[in-house]
Formats: sequence, structure tokens, C-alpha cells
Amino acid sequence: MSKPSPHLTVHVPLDGGRDYDILIGRGLIAGAGGRVAALKGRAAVIVSDETVAALYAAPLRESLEAAGLRSGLVTVPPGEASKSYGCFAAVCDGLLAHKVERGDLVVALGGGVVGDLAGFAAASLRRGVRFVQVPTSLLAQVDSSVGGKTGINSPLGKNLIGAFHQPRLVLADTATLDTLSEREMQAGYAEVAKYGLIGDAGFFDWCEAHWAGIFSGGPERDEAVAVCCRAKAGVVVRDEREDGERALLNLGHTFGHALERLTGYDGARLVHGEGVAIGLALAFRFSARLGLCPGQDAGRVANHLAMAGLPTTLAQVPGGCGDADALLDAMAQDKKVRDGALTFILARGIGKSFIAPGIDRAEVRAFLQDELAA
Amino acid sequence: MSKPSPHLTVHVPLDGGRDYDILIGRGLIAGAGGRVAALKGRAAVIVSDETVAALYAAPLRESLEAAGLRSGLVTVPPGEASKSYGCFAAVCDGLLAHKVERGDLVVALGGGVVGDLAGFAAASLRRGVRFVQVPTSLLAQVDSSVGGKTGINSPLGKNLIGAFHQPRLVLADTATLDTLSEREMQAGYAEVAKYGLIGDAGFFDWCEAHWAGIFSGGPERDEAVAVCCRAKAGVVVRDEREDGERALLNLGHTFGHALERLTGYDGARLVHGEGVAIGLALAFRFSARLGLCPGQDAGRVANHLAMAGLPTTLAQVPGGCGDADALLDAMAQDKKVRDGALTFILARGIGKSFIAPGIDRAEVRAFLQDELAA
Repeated sequence: MSKPSPHLTVHVPLDGGRDYDILIGRGLIAGAGGRVAALKGRAAVIVSDETVAALYAAPLRESLEAAGLRSGLVTVPPGEASKSYGCFAAVCDGLLAHKVERGDLVVALGGGVVGDLAGFAAASLRRGVRFVQVPTSLLAQVDSSVGGKTGINSPLGKNLIGAFHQPRLVLADTATLDTLSEREMQAGYAEVAKYGLIGDAGFFDWCEAHWAGIFSGGPERDEAVAVCCRAKAGVVVRDEREDGERALLNLGHTFGHALERLTGYDGARLVHGEGVAIGLALAFRFSARLGLCPGQDAGRVANHLAMAGLPTTLAQVPGGCGDADALLDAMAQDKKVRDGALTFILARGIGKSFIAPGIDRAEVRAFLQDELAA
Repeated sequence: MSKPSPHLTVHVPLDGGRDYDILIGRGLIAGAGGRVAALKGRAAVIVSDETVAALYAAPLRESLEAAGLRSGLVTVPPGEASKSYGCFAAVCDGLLAHKVERGDLVVALGGGVVGDLAGFAAASLRRGVRFVQVPTSLLAQVDSSVGGKTGINSPLGKNLIGAFHQPRLVLADTATLDTLSEREMQAGYAEVAKYGLIGDAGFFDWCEAHWAGIFSGGPERDEAVAVCCRAKAGVVVRDEREDGERALLNLGHTFGHALERLTGYDGARLVHGEGVAIGLALAFRFSARLGLCPGQDAGRVANHLAMAGLPTTLAQVPGGCGDADALLDAMAQDKKVRDGALTFILARGIGKSFIAPGIDRAEVRAFLQDELAA
């Protein structure tokens, strides 16, 4: 076993014996075995996608086996299309074929797709086995690996089928981000910026000054991941099942999900983080238009996201995104619909987001028409 | 709306606001609307199988609509084969097509297959919507509709994929049992007798005297269903996730599940309750052979089950069930395997069951060989 590497720790103090640690640092995969073995269990079976498995499955398995765990590997094709009923069945059956018993562990090694899929499989296998998240994308490290939301997509919409199932441990090895493409880093960065925009204006200031260090892999990267995880953990502990405050994490997502839907979830056209970036810019411009937020804050949001290489307007959606009515219909499909009314996350300024239920459809429509004409 | 019909009530006092009532009586379907509407929610969408839907979906929908709920219906083919990944996807998508939102209700109308499948779909849809069980078989009324275990089968084994998801209400309309075949009633009766055998010798005595009234639909039927639900609710409240005592409910099931597996889950050969009946008889004979239980208790169990028309020996499995090793292998697949050791539920007498972990494989093998030679 390699000796423990230096890392930051964020504790998620959930009740009922479900509290867990998020470790953040370079080299955590090579030292994973001892930490996973400490959770007890005889076997730790990895779920990954073919791309990530080729890079990290071997060192992770070696570390698990060295710590005395029986290991195994189940892979799915890379990409959002794997968050399907078919891959859910294949992963569950793959885990069963590896004889995962109730006390064993599932290890999700990969980005958000793998984490969501493997987490839902772990939640459902034998009505629930424990799982460990080893997120390998920036998006997954700051967002999807924390908080226990797992799930797959239905042909009728994204993330509509799933479970709340908390990991027992999250190992965010920030060295894995070195192998991400620029575009993947940018997409993840939209979620990083989001945490500042939701409720931490100081962090957004810091991002404006230090974003390049996050991209290049300096110490700013670990720091940013830790700030985001701590923010998300706080929200999740206060509102695990999204009866209230947790909805703030969806800032930019109602627009973003609609754009993903209208581009057919085709990552070649628009990935999740790009949809979120446009959604964040739209949420602030819409807030400004409603007189809720200073126009200069909306401008600052769009400028910073653009600086980091992210799209911020509907015109930047490759292949277009349809008209205002298509966008509205796509938004109405979102699971954040309750009793048919549109709920948005809006802002009174940077770091001052709030839940705005019952937003008038005509107001949204007029805003989208102007955005499309811009 | 019809006026409320007389019924028995069993309360399940789960914590965290998850307590619920089981109502037992004739005519509850026709009066369901008001009770379901009292749970709040705009829509109540029924999941059923084609056979049960033809009998009861219309009156149930009428009652729901009369109480002001929007209703809908999603059906699957009847039979165990519907507890599949494919039907899970179809039911989830069907519920989404009916625009089931987070505050709405799923109503499982049918036997154990429908309850398990609809319950897992409800648990997973939008990461959990509430559901109501309307069990229409004796098996479902006394067992599967109570306790929150939901799930589907994998090609690698029965009930291996699922969730713990408690219903908000159970309406056991005992008049629906009038339309069951003799064989279905007998199969459900194996689970009724099981509750006496697990921990209530007095109820087993009562069953020996009154079983005919349960079959014919006399007041004994409602009484028996209530006794079983009360017994199960007690166990579930004390051990919801089967870390201990709840495993007692599996009396007869380790053998029973193996027999179902070896007959290819072909209900034409062996239905669940028949497997359980043979399993109960085997569990008592095995207990007697180990010197744990009086031989006369084992004899009494087999005699009573046979009196009710149920099989009690391996020789009665249509088409046979393979040799002792095939049975052992099938048992080892069961999810009640932990760290590879066989755990059985055995008995020190009628009403005196206990969990027996680490049972010697060779001892089981010798017992099965003698049973097969008998």
C-alpha cells in the first residue's frame, strides 16, 4: 500500500449513522485500498466506463486487493446514453455475477454518469448495498458525487428514475482531472462558479481571481473542490430530499436541462455543464429583467463564465434550441414541476439566490423570445 | 361515493412520519376514493395486471375520480415474468406519461407481483413518490403488501433488485379473494399458516379449526388477514431492513425459493406459496432431524398444509427439482447468503422459530438426499 497522501477532508454529518467523509487531493486512488477496507466488507466491485477504467481501474484494484478486499470490475460505455434502463440492468446483473453480498461495497469510478448509474444500482441491489464514490471529473467531484442523488434517464426525461442513496466515502483524486479535456474542465467549472453564485459572493470573487489555477492543477484546484463540497454538504444535511433549500443547487438547471433535452442529450452538441453555464447566465439576466437583481451582476456572471470558455447565450447552442415555446415545453417536463407551475431559482445578486415558485409562464416566454432575438 | 364499509384496522407505527394503516374488509375498493384523497395529491395512477384490471380498475377509478383525484391506469401482463427490468421500465415510463408528479400517488392494484413491481417503480420514480397497496390475492394481503419490501427479479435470482419503500395506506378488500382460483387461495394460505408457525402457536391451533372459513369467505377470512398483518407489522416495525428478526418471516422460504428457481419460476409447475408450503414442511422436518423440534410438530405442520390442499414433499414438485446438489446450489444463490454461509430459519416447535446461521452444508445435503429418496 502507498502511504496516505496529503488531502483535504469535508465531513458530511448525516444522521442515522450515515455520515461520511469526502477526501480531496492528488493520489487518492493509489491509496484507496486501506480507506475502503476500513468500511468492512469482503468485496469491493468497481463500476466504471471503458475510458476511465482503462486509466484507473488497474491501480484502484491493485490497491483494493492489497488491502485484502476481493475486487471486480463492471464497465459500461462512456457517455450519458449509459444512464439508461438497459445499463442499469447490466450493471446490477454484473454486480450480482461478481457475487456482491449485502455487506460488500460498490465503487463508482468515473464521472457523473458512472456515479449516478452505479449509485442507483447500489441502492437497488439486494435493496441496498453501500457504495464509495471515486469521481474522476471536475463536475462529479464538486457536484454529483456528493449528496446521495442517484439515478438514470427515462425516454421521458433526465434523472427521472433513481434513489436517494448516500455514499459511505468519497475519494476525489484531483490528479485525475489532469487527463480531462479542456471542454470537460470548462463544463465542470460551471458548477464550481455556481456555488459562488448561489450563496457565497466571496467565493465567486475568489474564482474570478484564481480560476486559472483550478484549470492548471495548482493548489487552487483542491481548495475549490473542497469549498464546493462543503457548500453542497451543508445544503444536503439541512435538506436531504429537496423539500426546500436543496432546490437552490438547481440554479441554472431548469434552463440547462431544457437545453440538454432540446439538443437530444447529444454531448457533441452540448454537455451538462455548458447547459448549466447558459442557464446560470439566463437565470441572472431573467432576475435582472424582473427587477430583482442588478444588471451589472448579470453582466459579471456572463463575463466570468465566458472568460473560462463557457457559452452564455442561446445563440451559442450548436444547431439551435428551437423557439420560446419549445423551450417552455422542455422546461415544463422538468421534475421540478409541482402541480404544473414553473419553479425557478432566481437571484437578488451574486451569492443571493432564492427559490421562486409560481413564475408566470408568459413572463418567461417574453424573456426567452428576447434572448433568442438577441 | 359509497359509504365507508365496516373493516378491521391494523396500524403500522413506523417512525419519521411513515406510519400507516392497513384496512381489511369487504368492499374497500368501491370506497377507496375518499381514503386515498385524504393522503393529498392531485393524481392517483393505478398499476395493475390485465386480469385484475379487468375486474377492479373501473370501480377503483370511479371511486378515485368521485373523490376529486385525477386517475390513470398502467397495466402489465399477469404473472411473475412481469417482475422484470423491462416491465419496471415500462411501468415507470407509463407513470411518467400519466404525469405523476412528486406529490401524487401510485396505486398498486393486484397480487404480489404487481405490488412488488409498482412499489419499486414508486420508490424510484422521481426518486420516490408515495404509493397505496390494494392487494387482491390472499398472498399479497397477508404478506407482500405489508412491510415495504419492493422489487423485481434478475436473471440471476428472485427479488434481487428493489427498494425498501413503505406504502402510505393498504386497502385489503377481502371480497376480491372470491374470484381467486382454489390454487391461488391455497398458495396464499401457506403464508397464513406460516405466521402461526413462526411465533404464534395459538393462531396455528385456530387455523387448524377455522381454515375452511378463510377459504369460503366467512368472517374468519378478515380475522386471519388481520392477525397476519398485525404479526408482520410488529416484525417490520422492530426490524424494518431485516438486520435481524425480520428474517424469521423467511421461514420456509430458503427451500421455497430454491424450488421456484429450479422450476424456472414457472407458475404452471409451482407457484410461490406452494414452494413455501414444501419449504415449511422441510424446515420443520429438518429441525426435527437436527433434534431441535419434536417430530410430532413436524408431522402436524405437514398434515395441516396437506389438508388445505398444499404440497409438502419434494416428490410433489411437478417435473422434479433435481438432486441434492442442485437444490444446495439454488439455495446458495438466495440473497440470505452472507459471506457464503447458509442461514436457515428453523424451529424448536410450532410457534418457536429462530434464525440459524452457519448451518453445515453437508448436514443439509444428507437431509435433502433422504427427502428425495422418501
